[in-house]
Amino acid sequence: MNRIEIFGIDGLPEIGSGDDLAALIADAASAQATPLADRDVLVVTQKIVSKAEGRIVAVDPDDPLSHKPLVERESVRVLRRRGDLVISETRHGFVCANAGIDLSNVERGSAALLPEDSDRSARRIRDALRGRAGLDLAVIVSDTFGRTWRRGVTDVAIGSAGISAVVDLRGSTDAHGRELQVTEVAVVDEIAAAAELVMGKAEGVPVAVVRGVNDAWFGDGDVRRDIVRRPAEDLFR
Amino acid sequence: MNRIEIFGIDGLPEIGSGDDLAALIADAASAQATPLADRDVLVVTQKIVSKAEGRIVAVDPDDPLSHKPLVERESVRVLRRRGDLVISETRHGFVCANAGIDLSNVERGSAALLPEDSDRSARRIRDALRGRAGLDLAVIVSDTFGRTWRRGVTDVAIGSAGISAVVDLRGSTDAHGRELQVTEVAVVDEIAAAAELVMGKAEGVPVAVVRGVNDAWFGDGDVRRDIVRRPAEDLFR
Repeated sequence: MNRIEIFGIDGLPEIGSGDDLAALIADAASAQATPLADRDVLVVTQKIVSKAEGRIVAVDPDDPLSHKPLVERESVRVLRRRGDLVISETRHGFVCANAGIDLSNVERGSAALLPEDSDRSARRIRDALRGRAGLDLAVIVSDTFGRTWRRGVTDVAIGSAGISAVVDLRGSTDAHGRELQVTEVAVVDEIAAAAELVMGKAEGVPVAVVRGVNDAWFGDGDVRRDIVRRPAEDLFR
Repeated sequence: MNRIEIFGIDGLPEIGSGDDLAALIADAASAQATPLADRDVLVVTQKIVSKAEGRIVAVDPDDPLSHKPLVERESVRVLRRRGDLVISETRHGFVCANAGIDLSNVERGSAALLPEDSDRSARRIRDALRGRAGLDLAVIVSDTFGRTWRRGVTDVAIGSAGISAVVDLRGSTDAHGRELQVTEVAVVDEIAAAAELVMGKAEGVPVAVVRGVNDAWFGDGDVRRDIVRRPAEDLFR
């Protein structure tokens, strides 16, 4: 049976536009008691990916709603509005509050947009760590989304590389030898949620390692193709 | 910084109506290399809770849709139908496929209904483990739900005891000293998702331990009061 370990990576500097995130993560990790290893899943919060990719824009620091025009610009469709809250669909196909734009953990007078292509962001970090350190690991870019009909936010994957985003258990049998009805598990979302348990929102731990996930899950996959539900299969758009 | 460990509890027998789940879990856990400890979070899948509570009903084994009348009976409101799929609201307030009823991991000719009160189920297990083994731990009852706009299912909490279901970070400040915008984290959902990483759907590991979660999260809370979103605050009902 597998055993999972989750721990944060400490000591990353403040990230700025153009920073080599993979190099900074590798350096911070190598200074830790537990270095990175093959088959680790590295979970990186969207915020530092957006910073490294220059997806930070200036907003009026004295206007708490100054990022709202950005929400419209970053959305392809608005699903619901209530007061200041907008639930919209982004170009990536994510449905979330305020197009994923937020003001926390960025400089005053700034707002962070989502990465343009968060699967590509994950692939870049993965490829750089492989090239730099010879490590064969998976990378998930995580963000914090609400969940319909439930209170409280949880972290989900908005990009991934080196791991199946959804694991298809169709054809597997349950403990009674019958084919399983529930088939496709969004393992990258479960791993992103798990990683959040050591990150906290306020603690400034933007990278965590999830170690010990099922070997069979490593391989090809990404969030946009495998997780984003196409409008035609969608019952709530 | 906290470090999380997750491992399954092996060797539970097949569960039947009236079984003392807490005793069986305690016995199985004490036979393991790593016994249960205070401040563990025990995640128990809904299926074995329903079995122990006698929430198994007979269905025609030759009719794959024989549980459909049960779905209507267990629902207070149907939100969407497509083909055989029903998305409905249960008496607990959960919105999920088929009122949470499923046929996997139960005997042929049976269907498992959700526990009548899954927070009470979690409290009972927690209280019994405290009484029996003097352990002060938290218990989450988990089930597998889809997520709107995303493919793939993930485990969520349908009941909890001994832990805050939602941790309110309102008033906390981020790494830049500004109040956080995103405030309430559904930590029991994140823990349920994390536990699923060692359970698998087909592997018959119905109980897992999540060790190392933030000490401050232990305390009062339950899913129905803290997680289920009231229709008045809901944008998608």
